[in-house]
Amino acid sequence: MRLICAICLGLLAAQAQGVLRSPYDIVEQAPATDWRAVRPENSLYIELATGTVVVELLAEIAPSHSANIKALVRAGFYDGLTIYRVVDGFVAQGGDVNSDTPIGLAKRTLPGEFEFDGTLPYAFTQVDEEDGFSKRSGFVHGFPVGRAAGRQWMVHCPGAFALARDNDPASGGTEFYVVLGHAPRYLDRNVTVFGMVRHGMEHYQQLNRGRDSSGQLEPERRNPIQRMRVGSDVPADQQLALQVMKTESESFLELVRSRANRPETWFVHKPGYVDVCAVPVPVRQIIPPLP
Amino acid sequence: MRLICAICLGLLAAQAQGVLRSPYDIVEQAPATDWRAVRPENSLYIELATGTVVVELLAEIAPSHSANIKALVRAGFYDGLTIYRVVDGFVAQGGDVNSDTPIGLAKRTLPGEFEFDGTLPYAFTQVDEEDGFSKRSGFVHGFPVGRAAGRQWMVHCPGAFALARDNDPASGGTEFYVVLGHAPRYLDRNVTVFGMVRHGMEHYQQLNRGRDSSGQLEPERRNPIQRMRVGSDVPADQQLALQVMKTESESFLELVRSRANRPETWFVHKPGYVDVCAVPVPVRQIIPPLP
Repeated sequence: MRLICAICLGLLAAQAQGVLRSPYDIVEQAPATDWRAVRPENSLYIELATGTVVVELLAEIAPSHSANIKALVRAGFYDGLTIYRVVDGFVAQGGDVNSDTPIGLAKRTLPGEFEFDGTLPYAFTQVDEEDGFSKRSGFVHGFPVGRAAGRQWMVHCPGAFALARDNDPASGGTEFYVVLGHAPRYLDRNVTVFGMVRHGMEHYQQLNRGRDSSGQLEPERRNPIQRMRVGSDVPADQQLALQVMKTESESFLELVRSRANRPETWFVHKPGYVDVCAVPVPVRQIIPPLP
Repeated sequence: MRLICAICLGLLAAQAQGVLRSPYDIVEQAPATDWRAVRPENSLYIELATGTVVVELLAEIAPSHSANIKALVRAGFYDGLTIYRVVDGFVAQGGDVNSDTPIGLAKRTLPGEFEFDGTLPYAFTQVDEEDGFSKRSGFVHGFPVGRAAGRQWMVHCPGAFALARDNDPASGGTEFYVVLGHAPRYLDRNVTVFGMVRHGMEHYQQLNRGRDSSGQLEPERRNPIQRMRVGSDVPADQQLALQVMKTESESFLELVRSRANRPETWFVHKPGYVDVCAVPVPVRQIIPPLP
């Protein structure tokens, strides 16, 4: 199937023209119009002891959970709670380990939004067909998604932001996790995945780990969440000016092709293929000039 | 292609019999005969500030590099050097950033052993067909490998241990890296990959990161390698008794099937598929009883 995929055909065309640039050059040279800002109202700032992490939400794919987590954040629910489960190479999970923190007007649990059955207001950029976990995989609005039978869902690439749950599919709502390692895509379509870390992933990697396979931390080794805020509630001069490469842009289309068939002379074996989670979406931070 | 793969057929058979256990239960209940010891003479102990990492070498797939790195370690080459390049979610690379440390009788560079063209003395356990990067992928002797046209090579799963090089394919030999994040399989067949971290991966995740995309660290932030030793040179009472699940065992075969079609009631969507790097090979440490 892959040999006739759109990306592969594009790749062959680009090779024929001899124009494929390296991933590094594509990102460096991308025009300003191929980047978009992270909207503050769709972002969460997670203040950890080691630094601030910024998550961008794809609110349209999980509208109820997006609204609810912003309500939780604004109620101060997470402030002073912890990231209490960290499994090296898998996920870090945080929130209310005792399930007794007041939630304000938000909900503690809500029905899962595991898949989205409709049309998102964004173009789809395909990376792969029949990747084993989905009929098609690619990106919408900078987020990795899978598609099949008219449905789409965010996939568990590194940095994906999702809500843990118990056996009941409607038991998630407050406990969030971030994917740390190799994409655990067997979790796709089993939880509500609705965001990506856009800044500060390295702080997640510095967290204390659990000592056994459960990843559960003893109380004294849990990782404090000092504060969480919705980006638009952060004073304007403290907001990070983050930009994401538009995944429907010409730059990104070339980036996917370039990652599939690396043009750099270093490569003696050109893979001719790339999986969706091996195409990290470029993010840049605009540092304002001094006044 | 995947719908007729051997694993899938085995999966259907197991489902029909209703016997598939969860990954957790399979590892917990695996008989002693389904584990093998990590041989000290094939292991490297890397002592970092945060703890000791143990790498097991698949010496047969890269005999020249295996012999050479053991000679480097035994010459004390790495002691006091650093891990000087750390790219979050990609790799951590260490060794001799200045290329001027004496190498004893070892070699600083040698021809790449990127692929092995022959028969390894171990059974192959297939996980996937046509995974995009290889004709077949699976495991030999606890190491993830790809296969095509009579050749086999270790693949870049998280924890893979390999040697960096410059543009010349014969320019690698001393600078080793460990894969930190999602499998960068586009590097497969481009470098000599010949080991896996079996213990202490979490110490690698705690290393200082580079501040830009190159991952290069300023001298004062480089991560010291306090000492490296071949496992068989470590005093017996300080060696870690590590055991790896035999990847040709019944337990591991069931583990692959179980990871492809999770039998736990938690899963509302069963993936029916797993990629080779999403099957971490179980490792356990035998803690000797007090005398």
